[in-house]
Amino acid sequence: MKAKIIDGKLIANQIKTELIQEIEKLEIRGFTPGLATVLVGEDPASNAYVRMKEKMCDEIGIQNFGYRLSGNTTENELLKLVDDLKNDHKVHGILVQLPLPKQINEQNVINAIPVFKDVDGFHPTNWGKMMIGEESFLPCTPAGIQELLIRSGYSPENKNVVIVGRSKIVGLPLANILIQKAPGANATVTVCHSKTQNLAEHTKRADILIAAIGIPEFITADMIAENSIVIDVGVNRVEAPEKKRGYRLVGDVNFEAVAKKAKAISPVPGGVGPMTIIMLMRNTVKAMKMANKL
Amino acid sequence: MKAKIIDGKLIANQIKTELIQEIEKLEIRGFTPGLATVLVGEDPASNAYVRMKEKMCDEIGIQNFGYRLSGNTTENELLKLVDDLKNDHKVHGILVQLPLPKQINEQNVINAIPVFKDVDGFHPTNWGKMMIGEESFLPCTPAGIQELLIRSGYSPENKNVVIVGRSKIVGLPLANILIQKAPGANATVTVCHSKTQNLAEHTKRADILIAAIGIPEFITADMIAENSIVIDVGVNRVEAPEKKRGYRLVGDVNFEAVAKKAKAISPVPGGVGPMTIIMLMRNTVKAMKMANKL
Repeated sequence: MKAKIIDGKLIANQIKTELIQEIEKLEIRGFTPGLATVLVGEDPASNAYVRMKEKMCDEIGIQNFGYRLSGNTTENELLKLVDDLKNDHKVHGILVQLPLPKQINEQNVINAIPVFKDVDGFHPTNWGKMMIGEESFLPCTPAGIQELLIRSGYSPENKNVVIVGRSKIVGLPLANILIQKAPGANATVTVCHSKTQNLAEHTKRADILIAAIGIPEFITADMIAENSIVIDVGVNRVEAPEKKRGYRLVGDVNFEAVAKKAKAISPVPGGVGPMTIIMLMRNTVKAMKMANKL
Repeated sequence: MKAKIIDGKLIANQIKTELIQEIEKLEIRGFTPGLATVLVGEDPASNAYVRMKEKMCDEIGIQNFGYRLSGNTTENELLKLVDDLKNDHKVHGILVQLPLPKQINEQNVINAIPVFKDVDGFHPTNWGKMMIGEESFLPCTPAGIQELLIRSGYSPENKNVVIVGRSKIVGLPLANILIQKAPGANATVTVCHSKTQNLAEHTKRADILIAAIGIPEFITADMIAENSIVIDVGVNRVEAPEKKRGYRLVGDVNFEAVAKKAKAISPVPGGVGPMTIIMLMRNTVKAMKMANKL
């Protein structure tokens, strides 16, 4: 294997250490950041994500307020809870785990979260602020990808970045972040998707390729440029009868082959995933500081 | 000259006719759309723009409420007017002409315009809605460019669109509009800017090239692909002593040379400009219909 591994776990741990130190200093001054985590229903994957976030809160010193609602919670009941949390001064960030059961309109819930507690960075106003380069909460996965690139020495500045996938959670906000006239951004960004003709022509001219399309091992070695940087955002379960749990996790990149040609690559798991959670923590600390004008 | 001229005046006139018919029908039902136009100070260009917008209101049957404030108006005075207009039920759209004098923070004023009367489409919440593909007011120039392409038979669907320029008024919102999974969008979009390396490599692979960089005649024939579609968003004054007014308007594209190579090109003036104004009118009618749940 030729490519250097971009170790998201290691970098997330560095940020974790920084946050622990910052929170300790805030504690001494009498401030404790608080995050409310809301899970509706029993989806095992969602449940696992929320527990990881809650565990991380404990580990770094963020006060966690966990809420578990039944799968037949109505939209009004959830909106009522969000409204209560809006007025709770101990809660600086509100995380409602998505997806929500189908009787609840997700966008209505996202819109109800106050902009200044929207640590997931999904509120339209925060998206608008991001676009115009105003201070805002950046969505955690794209913010984590930017941080991962910068801290591993592959700043997107002045580079050709090609993003495959235009999801609201990754592709679109990441494009907007990396286009900005700002340090760690300033990239020339192309967004490709299912309607793109001759996809490989685009991916092959990427200095930095971001795969966020949700198709297992979709990006193959012949689609990338020699010595490019490849960030794999995909988390796909593929059947693996030999494994105890019956599946294994693979990314959107054919890791083995691409790692022989790329200069650096982020693995799945252990690449973007750990960054997403730590960015949520960072947003929560930021929300607390903003609330207290620190 | 080989290129077909993309006639913004003609297409804007088609939309004008459609709007007149729509407004007549609304009038019969007792509804009149209203637009407030606010000009602060005496800048001749701003004054000319506002008068064009007001004249267009008259021509198509939108009630116009014109406000002229002195150049030393304070931010609070302007915010007070915006607040009054917010509560005025005859006013469905509020246009505050930019730029504003330097004692006024523009973003504060934009943020104060209610989202549902933001017919300029500059409020961060409308930007966020645009990004996530929710119903919103699209900013007039990028919306006009999309409409211009569609109506002249050069839909951006499945095409490589390269945008030169990442301004908040044109480049960034246009990228977000054309990336969307939506009819008349679905383009593979690249945004280039001052930090882009080897710009011509990008512009040369554009099926549709959008020049919005604000540099007179910056795009030259060797920078475009044979038979590409070129949209010129620039409006630059260059000295022209032979002209009575002492200047002439040129775009960001070297029109004469590029027109020999492109398949179609929008001129300056008479291309994007007329589209911008008619989109403002369309947004105002839309705001009125939304306010009355029509």
